[in-house]
Amino acid sequence: MANDTFLRACRREPVDYTPVWLMRQAGRYLKEYMEIRKNHPFLEMCKTPELACEVTLQPVRRFELDAAIIFADILLPLEGMGVKFGFAKNEGPYIEKPIRERSQIDAIRIINPEEDVPYLLSALKMVKAELNGKVPLIGFCGAPFTLASYMIEGGGSRNYIHTKKLIYSDPGAWKAFMEKICAVLAVYLNAQIEAGAQALQVFDSWVGCLGPAEYKEFVLPYTKKVIESVGSRVPVINFSTNTGPYIDLVSEAGGDVVSEDWRIRLDTAWEKIGHDRAIQGNLDPGVLFGPASAIREKAKEVLDMAGGRPGHIFNLGHGIILGTPVDSVRVLVDSVHELSGAE
Amino acid sequence: MANDTFLRACRREPVDYTPVWLMRQAGRYLKEYMEIRKNHPFLEMCKTPELACEVTLQPVRRFELDAAIIFADILLPLEGMGVKFGFAKNEGPYIEKPIRERSQIDAIRIINPEEDVPYLLSALKMVKAELNGKVPLIGFCGAPFTLASYMIEGGGSRNYIHTKKLIYSDPGAWKAFMEKICAVLAVYLNAQIEAGAQALQVFDSWVGCLGPAEYKEFVLPYTKKVIESVGSRVPVINFSTNTGPYIDLVSEAGGDVVSEDWRIRLDTAWEKIGHDRAIQGNLDPGVLFGPASAIREKAKEVLDMAGGRPGHIFNLGHGIILGTPVDSVRVLVDSVHELSGAE
Repeated sequence: MANDTFLRACRREPVDYTPVWLMRQAGRYLKEYMEIRKNHPFLEMCKTPELACEVTLQPVRRFELDAAIIFADILLPLEGMGVKFGFAKNEGPYIEKPIRERSQIDAIRIINPEEDVPYLLSALKMVKAELNGKVPLIGFCGAPFTLASYMIEGGGSRNYIHTKKLIYSDPGAWKAFMEKICAVLAVYLNAQIEAGAQALQVFDSWVGCLGPAEYKEFVLPYTKKVIESVGSRVPVINFSTNTGPYIDLVSEAGGDVVSEDWRIRLDTAWEKIGHDRAIQGNLDPGVLFGPASAIREKAKEVLDMAGGRPGHIFNLGHGIILGTPVDSVRVLVDSVHELSGAE
Repeated sequence: MANDTFLRACRREPVDYTPVWLMRQAGRYLKEYMEIRKNHPFLEMCKTPELACEVTLQPVRRFELDAAIIFADILLPLEGMGVKFGFAKNEGPYIEKPIRERSQIDAIRIINPEEDVPYLLSALKMVKAELNGKVPLIGFCGAPFTLASYMIEGGGSRNYIHTKKLIYSDPGAWKAFMEKICAVLAVYLNAQIEAGAQALQVFDSWVGCLGPAEYKEFVLPYTKKVIESVGSRVPVINFSTNTGPYIDLVSEAGGDVVSEDWRIRLDTAWEKIGHDRAIQGNLDPGVLFGPASAIREKAKEVLDMAGGRPGHIFNLGHGIILGTPVDSVRVLVDSVHELSGAE
């Protein structure tokens, strides 16, 4: 592999410079992405390996990124589970029949990745071949909480009241739901490894709507189970946002790497996670709307908090925001490399 | 005053039981509120002292709350500042011309409360007379950051990119903007005290989109200035959400009482704030969608974390959510009183 800096950092091995990749690095801020997107609905892009492969590679061609992440969506496994969903034009995803009853939970099927997401596995193989060892390839899934709350709320949510209602009024049903999702994700993630993923990120993008007691009882055991289902086959990144106050609990759920958002200082976060684990993050994606000088300065702040310790993967605290200037991304990637010692 | 438990708790004096009030306790979850609301647009209600007075009193009549909070909106001072806004039907507020240029900031006027918000001052006097010492009356304002970001974004926002762009690209303009808002809020809050407010809450509802370094440089000095402008005339509650990881900085901004959301344990939060300050919170408003048993249990968890120490005001971590069952509110208020020793 020409550049294994990212994988070495996941394992806290010494590296020549801090590796960087960006959540949603393949996306609408790139004109070459929009060129394809204008002719293909989002879901069609996910389901057409040639298109998914192409957009996965676009940012890796344009910037000196240290990893590629497969172009896909956290909802892809739902179809095989028997939970129909779609994407409204210019809006977010929606679930046709939100899951609110125990009987719906019991009806959920465990997927067979080869039959249910063959396009994803093909895309991974195709990207892996195309990359030809240039940089590692990351696969991913939504964490059990984030997937469950999507299915319960029926789409994006502000207050997650249906999810919380289920947790408080029928904890048994909630736990049965989480177990089902764990079983799905175990096969989903392992199939991604077999198709070529060299690292995996588990996205718990929405779990920060909960407090620590709820996280501990209703989330932690399940995220832990998903991460354990990968064993030590490839490094796993445990990602969440808005969980800074209970990052110790998030960290207990496992992962070779813990990823946090910008609300918590990276040095404080790393101390709480423990220096025997790697850390990912944690620049505010909003910084990319500032001038180059601010981007460079804020990147330096993050690197300084990491203190040159092995096991830091530079990333944003959340995905690239629509409208982010392409030049800002270049400035960030290059600054991280230069400031951390790349030649 | 018949019941000054809330004010005593603000000053960390001994109380017979833990006082409780709820953010957005006057609102759409009450049918008597909707009865009035259906005939009057929201802003008209704010601007008609009789209506504002009536809806302020509604929850205090229905539940055994330990404080009333004036029915108003954080945007009310904007009109006098020369920043026009409105409320879209069934949607949030919008600013007619979002503030994005230095010249717009320089054009902002310092308000004269007697001329610019006479209706608010009348409503406060009316409520104070009607309450007749039953419970204390709380006035409030939006914190400088939350008001500035409203004016910059032009309404609700997901990523606050215009706000962050201004902070990073023209910090001088940002600081001038914050100074203007501080000057407005100083007169706005003091006028509320003169009209009868016995405590004040400063709502920094949106500041949790920032990280700690930005909070420290671009927010803290201004929130501090606003709180200091009240002097020791009445207790001030410093409210924010999503700031758990840097609650130490939030606390530095001042306030007799610091209010936090449910993402941080109340005992941890109080330790970081310091036990020489009072604390408010911090139940997840989502709990009110659960059964009575869960509401009672979660209320007990919060009270246990407060440990019976003087200076705890029970509240939600954020406002009551639309659709909250009225019975849940009663269960909560009564549980807090019973579990904390009321007879």
